[in-house]
Amino acid sequence: MSAIPEDFVRKTARLSEEVTRPFPSSTKLYIQGSRPDIRVPLRQIEQTPTLTSGTPEENPPIPVYDTSGPYTDPAAKIDLLKGLPALREAWILERDDTEQLDGPSSEFGRARQADPELAHLRFEHIHRPRRAKPGRNVTQMHYARQGIITPEMEYIALRENCRLQELREDPRYSKLLRQHPGESWGASIPEEVTPEFVRSEVAAGRAIIPANINHPELEPMIIGRNFRVKINTNIGNSAVTSSIEEEVEKMVWSARWGGDTLMDLSTGKNIHETREWILRNAPMPIGTVPIYQALEKVDGKAEELTWEMFRDTLIEQAEQGVDYFTIHAGVRLAYVPLTADRVTGIVSRGGSIMAKWCLAHHRESFLYTHFDEICEIMQAYDVSFSLGDGLRPGCIADANDRAQFAELETLGELTKKAWEHDCQVMIEGPGHVPLHKVKENVDKELEDCFEAPFYTLGPLVTDIAPAYDHITSGIGAANIGWYGTAMLCYVTPKEHLGLPNKQDVRDGIITYKIAAHGADLAKGFPGAQLQDNALSKARFEFRWEDQFNLSLDPERAREYHDQTMPKEAHKVAHFCSMCGPNFCSMKITQDVRDYAAKQGISEDEALEKGLEEKAMEFRKQGAEIYKKA
Amino acid sequence: MSAIPEDFVRKTARLSEEVTRPFPSSTKLYIQGSRPDIRVPLRQIEQTPTLTSGTPEENPPIPVYDTSGPYTDPAAKIDLLKGLPALREAWILERDDTEQLDGPSSEFGRARQADPELAHLRFEHIHRPRRAKPGRNVTQMHYARQGIITPEMEYIALRENCRLQELREDPRYSKLLRQHPGESWGASIPEEVTPEFVRSEVAAGRAIIPANINHPELEPMIIGRNFRVKINTNIGNSAVTSSIEEEVEKMVWSARWGGDTLMDLSTGKNIHETREWILRNAPMPIGTVPIYQALEKVDGKAEELTWEMFRDTLIEQAEQGVDYFTIHAGVRLAYVPLTADRVTGIVSRGGSIMAKWCLAHHRESFLYTHFDEICEIMQAYDVSFSLGDGLRPGCIADANDRAQFAELETLGELTKKAWEHDCQVMIEGPGHVPLHKVKENVDKELEDCFEAPFYTLGPLVTDIAPAYDHITSGIGAANIGWYGTAMLCYVTPKEHLGLPNKQDVRDGIITYKIAAHGADLAKGFPGAQLQDNALSKARFEFRWEDQFNLSLDPERAREYHDQTMPKEAHKVAHFCSMCGPNFCSMKITQDVRDYAAKQGISEDEALEKGLEEKAMEFRKQGAEIYKKA
Repeated sequence: MSAIPEDFVRKTARLSEEVTRPFPSSTKLYIQGSRPDIRVPLRQIEQTPTLTSGTPEENPPIPVYDTSGPYTDPAAKIDLLKGLPALREAWILERDDTEQLDGPSSEFGRARQADPELAHLRFEHIHRPRRAKPGRNVTQMHYARQGIITPEMEYIALRENCRLQELREDPRYSKLLRQHPGESWGASIPEEVTPEFVRSEVAAGRAIIPANINHPELEPMIIGRNFRVKINTNIGNSAVTSSIEEEVEKMVWSARWGGDTLMDLSTGKNIHETREWILRNAPMPIGTVPIYQALEKVDGKAEELTWEMFRDTLIEQAEQGVDYFTIHAGVRLAYVPLTADRVTGIVSRGGSIMAKWCLAHHRESFLYTHFDEICEIMQAYDVSFSLGDGLRPGCIADANDRAQFAELETLGELTKKAWEHDCQVMIEGPGHVPLHKVKENVDKELEDCFEAPFYTLGPLVTDIAPAYDHITSGIGAANIGWYGTAMLCYVTPKEHLGLPNKQDVRDGIITYKIAAHGADLAKGFPGAQLQDNALSKARFEFRWEDQFNLSLDPERAREYHDQTMPKEAHKVAHFCSMCGPNFCSMKITQDVRDYAAKQGISEDEALEKGLEEKAMEFRKQGAEIYKKA
Repeated sequence: MSAIPEDFVRKTARLSEEVTRPFPSSTKLYIQGSRPDIRVPLRQIEQTPTLTSGTPEENPPIPVYDTSGPYTDPAAKIDLLKGLPALREAWILERDDTEQLDGPSSEFGRARQADPELAHLRFEHIHRPRRAKPGRNVTQMHYARQGIITPEMEYIALRENCRLQELREDPRYSKLLRQHPGESWGASIPEEVTPEFVRSEVAAGRAIIPANINHPELEPMIIGRNFRVKINTNIGNSAVTSSIEEEVEKMVWSARWGGDTLMDLSTGKNIHETREWILRNAPMPIGTVPIYQALEKVDGKAEELTWEMFRDTLIEQAEQGVDYFTIHAGVRLAYVPLTADRVTGIVSRGGSIMAKWCLAHHRESFLYTHFDEICEIMQAYDVSFSLGDGLRPGCIADANDRAQFAELETLGELTKKAWEHDCQVMIEGPGHVPLHKVKENVDKELEDCFEAPFYTLGPLVTDIAPAYDHITSGIGAANIGWYGTAMLCYVTPKEHLGLPNKQDVRDGIITYKIAAHGADLAKGFPGAQLQDNALSKARFEFRWEDQFNLSLDPERAREYHDQTMPKEAHKVAHFCSMCGPNFCSMKITQDVRDYAAKQGISEDEALEKGLEEKAMEFRKQGAEIYKKA
C-alpha cells in the first residue's frame, strides 16, 4: 500500500458518494441460478400506490437490467485497491483446462512489473495470469460447440430475461406487460432466453460472450442480435490530458449509467498500469485496441511496427484480462488506394496505422498474414475478436463506398477463419452514414460475415453538428440497432472536438441507452415495453417520484423538474408546471374516467346508455372539479 | 412610450448582444428576385484556404438557409418597440383584395384595446387589421389555384434553392456538391425549386405557405414534403411562470438557432398582449392553439365553451396576424370512449378540452359542426389550418391505436372540406411511437389526408427518458421526416418535466435541425449535402475555425473544443486533443496523400507503378514526418 502515493489512494480508493449510492427507490436483487454461485444482479424499482381512485391501487416493482455492478449494492464492500470479487474464478477452475503461469509471459508485461519506478502507479494485487493448457481451447464458443452450457451462459439467460417469466404469472403485471409486436428484420428473438438458447447462439457465432479467463471479476453478458441491444462506452487518457484516477472513476460512472462494455482507448503513458486498475475493478467486459499500445512502443512510427511486437502486446493484454481486442486485420494493401478520393480519407486510427504500414512496406499487414497465430492467442485466453473497420467512412460523403465494403468482405473471410479456431467474433461498423443508407450496412454485414454480431459506432446521420454528435449518432444508432446491430458504441458530445468529461460520458451513455432501448422496443424484445408502460402510467397518475425513479436518469429528471417547481409538495401535485393548476389534459382525462366510474359503468357504456340524459348532471359536477385543485 | 414601464423597455427593446451578433465568419446576403422588394435572406459562411498542400487552395463560401431574420443583419436597425419592417405589405396591398378595418372586429380584441390597465403591457404601434373584401378569398392556395404566382411563392423558390443553380456553374463547388441519391418514399423533389413548382404544390394542397395578411413582417417559407424539412418551436408562458420579455427573447433565440415557425402556446395572463409583441417582431410564421385562450375566458371550464366565444377568439387572433391555428376539430364524440382503455388517455390539451366538452354536452364539438364557418374566417385572413391530433398517443403503449387513426380519418374529411374553401391545411401527428410503427403514421396520413403536409411532434421512440426527450423524440423526428413529414415540432429536454429555459430551447432546436437535415440528406434534397461535405473537408484539413463556423451551433462547438485545448494556437494545430500530437489518423492519411503527390503521381498510381521499390525511401521519409509536430 505504501507504494501508492496518498493522493492517488484517497481519490481512487474512495469513490464519491454520488457514483456509489443506490438508485432512488431501487433494490438490488440477485436472481439465484442452478448453483449457489450463480447470482445474477437485477435492479428493482419500487413504486408508490395509485391514490387517485378511492382505494389505493398497488403498483408492483419494476425489474430492470442492471449493469452497475457491486457499486450500487449497499451490502458490497468496495475497495478499489483490492478490486472486485472474482465471481467467475470457480467456474474457470472447475473446467480444469487452464494453468496458472508464474508471471506475465509477455516481454513488456515482465518489464513493467520489474520496473521500480512504476511501483507508485501499480495495482497492488496483481494475479498471476492463467492460460489454456497446451492443446486446450477455452473459449465460450468452443464449449458451446461441444454442447456445454457454461455457468456464464446460464447467468446470461437469467440476466436477459429480467424475471419476465415470473412476472407473466403475476396478475399485477398483466396490463403492464402489454407490448406491440415487433419488426425484427429476420432476427429470431425467443419468448424466453434459456441457457440452451444462449449456447446455441454462441455456437452458431450469432452471439459472443466476451469473458477473458483473466477477468474473473466480470458479470457475464452477451452480444447478439437475438438478445437485448447493448452499448459500449469508451474511456481513455491521451498524451495531452487525463490520469488513472479519472479513468477508473469514469469506468464506474459508465457502469452506473448503463454501459454494457467498456473500451479503454488510452494512448498516453502508463496505459499498462491504468488498464490493470480498470480491469480489476470492472464488472463489465473491457476491450482495447492493442495496436495503439504497440505504436507507443515504436514512438508513433507506424512503419516500424512488427508482428513480434504486436504479438507481445496481445499476450501482455490478454494476460491482464482484456475481454475483446479490436484488430484491424481487414485493411488490405489493395484497399488503401480506394480511399484516396474520399473527402476524409481514413479516419480510423487503427486503420490509418495499418494503411501506413502497408504502403511503407508494400505488403499485406502482419495482422492479415498472421491471423491464424492471432487466433491461437485469442483462444488461449478467450479474448473475443472485434474485427475493426479501419476503412470506415469519416463523413456522409464517404459512406458505403467501395473501400468500406471491400474491407467488410475481408472481415467476413476472417470471421470464418476465426471460427475455425472456435474464436468469438464481432464485426465493427461505421461511422458516418445518411439515414437511408444505414440498413444496407446491416444487411451486408449479416450476409458477408455470416450473422456474426455487428458492433457499430453511431452512425452519425449528418456531419454538421459537432458538439451534438451524441445526438446525430444516436439517431443512426437507434436505427441500426433496430435493423440488427447487436451493440452500439456510444459517442459523446465532445466527439471530434475534445476529450469527454464526466457529464459528456453521462450524456453519451443515456443517449445510447435510449437508442438501444428504442431498438429493443422496435424489435419486440419480450418485456422491453414494461418500463415504458410503468413510467407512462406513473406519469398519467402524477406519481412524480415514480416517474423520476423509473427513468433512465432519475437524478436529472428530478433536477429538471425542480428547476421549475422546486417544492416538495409539487412532487405530489396533480398538475405540472407546463399548464398550471386549472388546466391539465391528464387531469381532464382522469376526471372523465372518474365520472364514468362513479356511475358504476364504464365510460363506454355511459356514452352508449345514459350520457344524453345525464349530460346536465355531469355539467354541474364537472364544473366543480377544478375548484378543488 | 411612457406607457411602457422602463424596465420592460430596457429588457425587450435592447436584445442582448449574444442573440443579435452575426454568426462567426458569416455574411448576410439577400438574393434579388424579379422585383426590387423580393430580397431573400441567405447566410454565407466564409472559409479559410487549405494550407497543407504547397499553394493555398481556396475554399469557397457555403450558403445556408437562414431563419434568423433581420436580427443577424448588421445593417438592420432593430427596435422591438416598433417591430420589424412590413416586407410583404406592398404585395398584400397590390392584390387589392383586402380592406383595412377601423379596429379589431372581435369583442375581446376591442375590450383589450380599450382597457387602460393594459396600457403598460401593450405594444405601441398596433396596426388596424386587414380582412378580405366581401366575397374575396385571400389565401395563397386560392391564388395558386387561379394560376397566380405570388411574390411569396417566388421568395420561397429562391429561399429553398439557396443559390444551388449558381453554385453548380462554379467549378469551385463541383466536388463539394457530390451527393448520395436519396430515398424519398414517393416524394417528388425537383432538381430546382421554381416559383411555378411552389405554386403547383400549394394548389395541390401538398404544401402550405402560412402567411396571414396581418403578419406582413414575416419572411415567407413553405411547408411540404417536396421542400426542405422544417422545424417548429414552441414558446409560451403559463399561469405558473414566465413573462412577456422572456417570451419575445425566446422567439429571437428560436429564429437564431434555426426555428422555421413558432407556436405561442401561452396559457397564462396577458396572452393577447404577449402575442402582439411576438408577432410584430417575428420573421417566422406564428401559430397558436386558440382553444387555450378561449378556455381562459371561461375560467378553465371546458363545458362552458361556446362556438360564439371560440369564433370571437379566432377573429381576435387572425386580426393580430397569427399564421396558423391548431384546431382539434377531429375529436368526435364517438372517438372519446376509444381512449378509455389507454395507458395515458388523452394527453393533448386541446383534445382533452374538446373531449370533455363533447361528453358534457353529449354532442359533436362546435369545432366539427361549425367547420365551414371556421373555414370562412381562415380564408378571410389566410390563416392556415393545423388540424390538431387531439387523440394522439401519449405513450408507446397507445401508439397507432384506433382512437388515433379514427381521428386521422376525420382530419382527412375536414381537409377536403377546407380545400373546398381554398384554405391551406396541414395535419398534426404524434407523439409517442416506437420506431417500427413510425412509417405507418406517415403512410396513413398521406393516404387519408390526400398528401396534405404532415406536422408531427417528435415522435418519442420510448417513454423512459424524461430529461432527454429532445433525443428520444429527435430519433423519431429524423425518421418521420425521412418518411415524408414536412415539419417537425421540436421537443426540449424539459418535456414532461417543466418549462424550457433558453438553453433547453437551444438544445431542442439544434436536435431538430439535426433531425430535419438528416431527413433532407436521406430524401436526397438537392444541395443538402453541401454543408456536410464542406465541414468534413475542413475537419480533415484541420481547419478548426471553418469546422466550428460551418456547424449548426458554432458557439458550442468552439466552447467544447476550448474545454480541452483552450489556446488560440490549437485552432490551427494539425492534431486534436483526442490523440495528441504524434498520433492522428487524419494526419497519417494526409501524409500518405502528400507523399504520393510529392512523387508527382497519385497514390493510386504510386501503388501500382512504383511503391515497391520506393518503399525504403518512404520509410525513411515517413519516419521523419512526426518529428515536425
